[in-house]
Amino acid sequence: MKEVNSMIKAFGEVMMRLEVPNHLKLEQATELGVLYSGTGINVLSALSRFGHSTSIITKLPDNALGDAAISYIRSLGIETSDIITGGNYLGMYFLEKGYHVRKTNVTYSNRKESSFCTSKITDYNVEEVLRGTSILHLCGIMLSISEQMRYNALTIAKKAKQLGITVVFDFNYRPKLWQEDFTQAKKWYECMLAYVDICFMTDMDALFILRMESTEKSRKQRMKQLIPEVAKKYNVATIAGSLRDQENQQICGFLYQQDVMYFSRTYQYQVLDRIGSGDAYASGILHGILKKFTDEDTVDFATAACVLAHTTYGDSPICSEEEIWLLAKQNNVQIER
Amino acid sequence: MKEVNSMIKAFGEVMMRLEVPNHLKLEQATELGVLYSGTGINVLSALSRFGHSTSIITKLPDNALGDAAISYIRSLGIETSDIITGGNYLGMYFLEKGYHVRKTNVTYSNRKESSFCTSKITDYNVEEVLRGTSILHLCGIMLSISEQMRYNALTIAKKAKQLGITVVFDFNYRPKLWQEDFTQAKKWYECMLAYVDICFMTDMDALFILRMESTEKSRKQRMKQLIPEVAKKYNVATIAGSLRDQENQQICGFLYQQDVMYFSRTYQYQVLDRIGSGDAYASGILHGILKKFTDEDTVDFATAACVLAHTTYGDSPICSEEEIWLLAKQNNVQIER
Amino acid sequence: MKEVNSMIKAFGEVMMRLEVPNHLKLEQATELGVLYSGTGINVLSALSRFGHSTSIITKLPDNALGDAAISYIRSLGIETSDIITGGNYLGMYFLEKGYHVRKTNVTYSNRKESSFCTSKITDYNVEEVLRGTSILHLCGIMLSISEQMRYNALTIAKKAKQLGITVVFDFNYRPKLWQEDFTQAKKWYECMLAYVDICFMTDMDALFILRMESTEKSRKQRMKQLIPEVAKKYNVATIAGSLRDQENQQICGFLYQQDVMYFSRTYQYQVLDRIGSGDAYASGILHGILKKFTDEDTVDFATAACVLAHTTYGDSPICSEEEIWLLAKQNNVQIER
Amino acid sequence: MKEVNSMIKAFGEVMMRLEVPNHLKLEQATELGVLYSGTGINVLSALSRFGHSTSIITKLPDNALGDAAISYIRSLGIETSDIITGGNYLGMYFLEKGYHVRKTNVTYSNRKESSFCTSKITDYNVEEVLRGTSILHLCGIMLSISEQMRYNALTIAKKAKQLGITVVFDFNYRPKLWQEDFTQAKKWYECMLAYVDICFMTDMDALFILRMESTEKSRKQRMKQLIPEVAKKYNVATIAGSLRDQENQQICGFLYQQDVMYFSRTYQYQVLDRIGSGDAYASGILHGILKKFTDEDTVDFATAACVLAHTTYGDSPICSEEEIWLLAKQNNVQIER
Amino acid sequence: MKEVNSMIKAFGEVMMRLEVPNHLKLEQATELGVLYSGTGINVLSALSRFGHSTSIITKLPDNALGDAAISYIRSLGIETSDIITGGNYLGMYFLEKGYHVRKTNVTYSNRKESSFCTSKITDYNVEEVLRGTSILHLCGIMLSISEQMRYNALTIAKKAKQLGITVVFDFNYRPKLWQEDFTQAKKWYECMLAYVDICFMTDMDALFILRMESTEKSRKQRMKQLIPEVAKKYNVATIAGSLRDQENQQICGFLYQQDVMYFSRTYQYQVLDRIGSGDAYASGILHGILKKFTDEDTVDFATAACVLAHTTYGDSPICSEEEIWLLAKQNNVQIER
Amino acid sequence: MKEVNSMIKAFGEVMMRLEVPNHLKLEQATELGVLYSGTGINVLSALSRFGHSTSIITKLPDNALGDAAISYIRSLGIETSDIITGGNYLGMYFLEKGYHVRKTNVTYSNRKESSFCTSKITDYNVEEVLRGTSILHLCGIMLSISEQMRYNALTIAKKAKQLGITVVFDFNYRPKLWQEDFTQAKKWYECMLAYVDICFMTDMDALFILRMESTEKSRKQRMKQLIPEVAKKYNVATIAGSLRDQENQQICGFLYQQDVMYFSRTYQYQVLDRIGSGDAYASGILHGILKKFTDEDTVDFATAACVLAHTTYGDSPICSEEEIWLLAKQNNVQIER
Repeated sequence: MKEVNSMIKAFGEVMMRLEVPNHLKLEQATELGVLYSGTGINVLSALSRFGHSTSIITKLPDNALGDAAISYIRSLGIETSDIITGGNYLGMYFLEKGYHVRKTNVTYSNRKESSFCTSKITDYNVEEVLRGTSILHLCGIMLSISEQMRYNALTIAKKAKQLGITVVFDFNYRPKLWQEDFTQAKKWYECMLAYVDICFMTDMDALFILRMESTEKSRKQRMKQLIPEVAKKYNVATIAGSLRDQENQQICGFLYQQDVMYFSRTYQYQVLDRIGSGDAYASGILHGILKKFTDEDTVDFATAACVLAHTTYGDSPICSEEEIWLLAKQNNVQIER
Repeated sequence: MKEVNSMIKAFGEVMMRLEVPNHLKLEQATELGVLYSGTGINVLSALSRFGHSTSIITKLPDNALGDAAISYIRSLGIETSDIITGGNYLGMYFLEKGYHVRKTNVTYSNRKESSFCTSKITDYNVEEVLRGTSILHLCGIMLSISEQMRYNALTIAKKAKQLGITVVFDFNYRPKLWQEDFTQAKKWYECMLAYVDICFMTDMDALFILRMESTEKSRKQRMKQLIPEVAKKYNVATIAGSLRDQENQQICGFLYQQDVMYFSRTYQYQVLDRIGSGDAYASGILHGILKKFTDEDTVDFATAACVLAHTTYGDSPICSEEEIWLLAKQNNVQIER
Repeated sequence: MKEVNSMIKAFGEVMMRLEVPNHLKLEQATELGVLYSGTGINVLSALSRFGHSTSIITKLPDNALGDAAISYIRSLGIETSDIITGGNYLGMYFLEKGYHVRKTNVTYSNRKESSFCTSKITDYNVEEVLRGTSILHLCGIMLSISEQMRYNALTIAKKAKQLGITVVFDFNYRPKLWQEDFTQAKKWYECMLAYVDICFMTDMDALFILRMESTEKSRKQRMKQLIPEVAKKYNVATIAGSLRDQENQQICGFLYQQDVMYFSRTYQYQVLDRIGSGDAYASGILHGILKKFTDEDTVDFATAACVLAHTTYGDSPICSEEEIWLLAKQNNVQIER
Repeated sequence: MKEVNSMIKAFGEVMMRLEVPNHLKLEQATELGVLYSGTGINVLSALSRFGHSTSIITKLPDNALGDAAISYIRSLGIETSDIITGGNYLGMYFLEKGYHVRKTNVTYSNRKESSFCTSKITDYNVEEVLRGTSILHLCGIMLSISEQMRYNALTIAKKAKQLGITVVFDFNYRPKLWQEDFTQAKKWYECMLAYVDICFMTDMDALFILRMESTEKSRKQRMKQLIPEVAKKYNVATIAGSLRDQENQQICGFLYQQDVMYFSRTYQYQVLDRIGSGDAYASGILHGILKKFTDEDTVDFATAACVLAHTTYGDSPICSEEEIWLLAKQNNVQIER
Repeated sequence: MKEVNSMIKAFGEVMMRLEVPNHLKLEQATELGVLYSGTGINVLSALSRFGHSTSIITKLPDNALGDAAISYIRSLGIETSDIITGGNYLGMYFLEKGYHVRKTNVTYSNRKESSFCTSKITDYNVEEVLRGTSILHLCGIMLSISEQMRYNALTIAKKAKQLGITVVFDFNYRPKLWQEDFTQAKKWYECMLAYVDICFMTDMDALFILRMESTEKSRKQRMKQLIPEVAKKYNVATIAGSLRDQENQQICGFLYQQDVMYFSRTYQYQVLDRIGSGDAYASGILHGILKKFTDEDTVDFATAACVLAHTTYGDSPICSEEEIWLLAKQNNVQIER
Repeated sequence: MKEVNSMIKAFGEVMMRLEVPNHLKLEQATELGVLYSGTGINVLSALSRFGHSTSIITKLPDNALGDAAISYIRSLGIETSDIITGGNYLGMYFLEKGYHVRKTNVTYSNRKESSFCTSKITDYNVEEVLRGTSILHLCGIMLSISEQMRYNALTIAKKAKQLGITVVFDFNYRPKLWQEDFTQAKKWYECMLAYVDICFMTDMDALFILRMESTEKSRKQRMKQLIPEVAKKYNVATIAGSLRDQENQQICGFLYQQDVMYFSRTYQYQVLDRIGSGDAYASGILHGILKKFTDEDTVDFATAACVLAHTTYGDSPICSEEEIWLLAKQNNVQIER
């Protein structure tokens, strides 16, 4: 039905999301919404809708939870033949959505004991799995989980690089997971950057993980200073990311390639379900690059994808390319440069 | 409002139960029912309804899941002031209810990494917690979890015994957790029996855990042979349990005390939600003993409580003493000797 | 759309039914099903489906609860132009459905303070309301509520009788409401019977309310003895009712007219929602009489309507005449004479 | 209970609305909300609440879907005795509610094959149905469906005109249904206008359907120019409509009668469920005319009815006259001239 | 688990709240959300979360409704041993939440016939119940219900005063219940004030109940004038309350003690569920006093608690002290002096 | 993850199933369960779970309904790359589940106007689609829809036969669709049988469609007589089917191959959701043949698969091979020869 463009794979964790409905607190709930999520499948879900072939490389327990995750991933249009089974648990998180000044609260369960987080890279048939792959997506959270996970992530990245596959890496920095041990984080992020072609990050990552310095106070200015430095120092061809102004509920994307920094228009956003909106942004950038959009179009498309991902339920983006262009090309009050 | 009779405490795990509704499989579900369960709180929930003061001794994570469990336990009428907080996880199980020939399926998560299962007995202020307690309830599953859990269970049982508290122990044998290592199981169950006053078990436990032998083929006959042997060998004052005939959906309870074996009438049962029905039986026996019912009444009351627990939603029994007597005293076709 | 046959009206209370779903107890519920019910609207709902014009004469509060009741009654196909508004409350009952040996539990709220139960017969424009009415249906519960309600019921019955309207009366005896004061009950039921043409009752009503005597032990024999006595003594043209064997889940209807007692076949029944099944029976008898079915057909149709009413949700019968005939004419194992 | 004022009938389609809940996309949904809708029953639902007698003239399939639609229509207070049954299908539409920048999406099913859209005018007993009717409401969508539907609509309009019944016509222009064939649309709308007394339309209809011309750029000015032209050219006594400023979420109504153009205050609106708000406006105008409100009051009442219809669930307006006056008479910041 | 600070009790009614979901009107609903509420348990729920021991003194019917209320109250962390049972009914209210310009609608049922409202003060063992109590909370609604309720409230207040317990009184003026009989209201409120140490009220209460006078037009100025007058005239040590600007959705709290009036910052609020937000404010003031916060901190904490109570489902506040401080100490655009 | 065995494709319709929950009638429902179904995807769903590669060949509308169907089909593990899009509608059916004596009611919508039923065989790239296919499954309902559908079905069957693909055909006779025009049905079924290798049918099909004759009264005997006749006359290698005794809720399967008739044991069944159980049977037979089970094992496996399909929600079988063997090999009272 859909013309296949490229085969994009992600190596990453799939978690169960258990959501308290109607802005209740968990203690008030007798029912929880359940779905399956992860940076990898979020990015792939969006790319699949844009007509690309996608496949997730992960490990799931061989039980009802693993089966349910596979069925859900398939429904998103992602291939599941690279999934291996074994281990004991599926990682989980409980989501209590906030309201206005009340904060959203996320509680993790089985973070480090999951089938994926306890897997070894040799469990996966890496050579075969990477054959025919155009793009491999990896998420920075893996670097924080354990020695084993770092090894897995770096090994597959290195192998992909050797095979000429485009390596995509999303910083996804979570200070809590590193217990603010910035030295450790820097070391491993730098190891990874050696293999990376396309990288998702912001000025904050440059400051706090890569320990760069800047005297610029405006984030946009800091971005203009630091991102080219990162690209140069770590030899990364493409860097992209987004700048969120939570106070005014505005977002603006950027894309740095071949010495030029492109900024998207600034979009207003409203939140139905925010998780996964960053992954929607990444999928938009990758789609633009794969389809050879102009850089201006790419960054606008990605930001519109991100804005629309705030308006759909669930972590995995499900808007069509057509819906995204409609917003990206729109010229009304809700959007301003 | 209710006249307080005795203070009964249980030392045991509290888990989150995540139930797939309407006989769906997990992969078909977008919503899960959530509640909190455990042998300890199940027994205490029933006893609380019978007018006793009850309190659960356990450890829960200091997060939204722990808070929700506490709120639920309170709603059952169980005191929560003996609960300590800390650790990372709440144990969980996913319940896919079967239908007719399709089996019910239970999938555990975080079985051994829970706050309770990773707690040390020194985390609890055992001396203070046991002060003023009449009965302490313990469950055999603890013996299978880990060295630490065995130590915790045996330590608190010993301490209770020393303080003259009635120690209640439910065999609750789960072969899977022991990986059928019967030798190991026997050793630890015997350690525990040294402190036990009231014990819940069946002939199967005598055969498979305590490694006793019998040539009797009828379970009732085997029961009559083995239970007195157990009582004598391990010096246990009271042994009770129930005999389920799943084929005919019938159940019959027994109570062995002072050299006499009492059997209840045989009741038909139908299943709305079966989990926790054994705990309802135990609560009925304990209530009969505390209230000095005749042994015949005690075993009939307990079996009726068990039968009714099949007809209510959730693991924790919620029928009133009045409802149970109504069934226990009933003389109709649904019940036969 | 439907050919109008006769105008049938009922004078009676409409209550709100608040149902705990999924066999939960009220304390376990966070949601309740809500609908509106009453002997009058139950009988009219069924008759409306059989093609008759129907209208309920009642009083409802002039607030959101009254509005909701009216909307629901309309959806059943019953006219609401005879409803008057005023007073403070809508009567309510909470329904906790049992399961197997666990009993169904009903808790009333605002039984005697409702707009209907505190209304005066002069609130209704009785003359006008009865104009053009063929049948007036009344329920015996009214006789137990208060002096005022007895007066209202007897006044409208008398007026209907004077106008040549067929007066239908359902004993609906609720001992609790009379606090077992049989003398009082007998007196008022006898007052009512003076105006009644068609009466729904059983041998139990003859024994306990009308204080008749019988040495017959089988209910069927007692019925054969007592019902003709009632018909004769109180000059009631038609008496009908049903005999339920709860143990075997069987039901059998009877109809006594012109000195002949007809019994239906014995039907098996299974319960999805039992409330209102007696009203379905009554509607079947009335339909048979209005449509001049043979007496045999009438009693079979009525019993089949009753059996089907056990299989639909809600108190108000909603099966079509076609569905009922299908069952009434069926000759399979589930039905036996 | 309610004093009857006038008998208002609508000839029009009733559809099933299947709504995806919680802003999900259809592919994410396992449950859909179901109700029944249509311009005709929406207008009648509102008028019924204002105390008028109303009846829908339509054709529904003689199956469970038709029965369900009838029950729903009755619950709105609309008479269903003019409904005929037959044909095969009920028209349907699937509603995926948008969120913020994400658009609402409507997918039709069985648009042209429905019982109504395949009915012939001779199926209805037009003479009898129109007897005693004060007002007949028709919707412009009928003109776009098929040759047969155009014939039906024009025939009943003509007949009503002959009988001195006030003919109300709502343009309800849907360019998609005409495939932008403006010439065709103009011809048939003009045929209809020959019979119309009260017409709902805007300047856009004058421009795009009636092919009038204007150099005015402000919509309000254009309205002031074109609406009197329409009234004069087609001899329509009353024209009304509303002007929505979607950007600022504001709405303002107008009413043109006897050479005078009245505008309501400008109201802010917020959307819970927008479909049917135009029908609420129409019902307000009709009520004002029937009750002889001043023109200023009529247009304010209608606009307030329209604003409130955005705040209630479902297509059919359900606010009371009292609630509408409360808003119409309110003098606060949420409303401004 | 939680360090016990003080024992706070409330004497007051517990009602069942039946909520129409999703902004429907009652007539559109087939399901209602159910929970239990009341000024007393709302205040205690919040205080319990702040680490205080709390207990509700009330009377509930001895049926399924009473049992359900007790279970719910326990889940909030409130002790239920002071609850007595008897009487017939549980008070109820039906909640139809509005949307934007559509008003929220509350319909009461069994307001005056409830177990609590028909109880006598001698039903409660007042002496024993008050033993060991630090604070007793009472609500002004009781003064409007009946002669008996006034007597009950004044008797327990007087007794508490004699025992040196801090008496807290919330004006909670409901003009409808007094049918605007201001003279009556003034008399009884003055009787109560004789026993009160801490009082919740506003300038409006001073004007309309206590019949004071002011020429100030700004509510803040009027507050500054009238509150000290009340404190002096009635010898009330502490008076607190909040000032809501509904138009701009802003709220500001005040606290008057020892001749000084403290105002909190002005907070923006948005409403998920507003009922109980005033009780959250009261709980914040009481917590500040008990924990000896500075007056400035107390009033800011209370106002933040109130704002957060708008963002949680249900009447009883459930935010933690930590969440409240987070908002109270926050320095962003959503909050301004 | 799963070892791929064979590529099995089905050419057939996919419909939307709209289910009234909780045994309600449609007129009582405000919510409907929604899923996607069809003989083809039901058989493929089961085969996919048994480890086979499967793909559905169908046509779906290019709108939200088509997208939702594709996502659902994917979640079942079926490939969707052979699906083409276009046309207007998705076929639908409304399901009102019966209860006990009340019959299940199915109402179709858009039966003949669906994208699939209005498609031409040239819309599909038949050559390419059949490449590499081992088995092609077709359903007899197609023969009754229209001239075009008959042509489509026969054309693809013929092509498959030519390519040496195993053609599987399920009679699935629906008398209503043929309006009992047996002559027409016979003709087209015979055309199809010319291409068929494996056929699902019963004695009833032989009698009523193929117009064969038998004097045997027992269905089993008739089967033994007629099935071999069909196999011989039409040269069909394998014929299988099942015999349902609805009265006793028993089912027994048969398989006829190489002149031998095998019967399975007789299984009891209970119905949670019966639709699709015949497709489960077919999938079991196909799996047995593909995996070269003995004929006895094949027919027992297929019947057990059928019995289990009664116990799961939805039309598409989702039990695992392991679960089915467990039942097929079970030797308890619920199963008897």
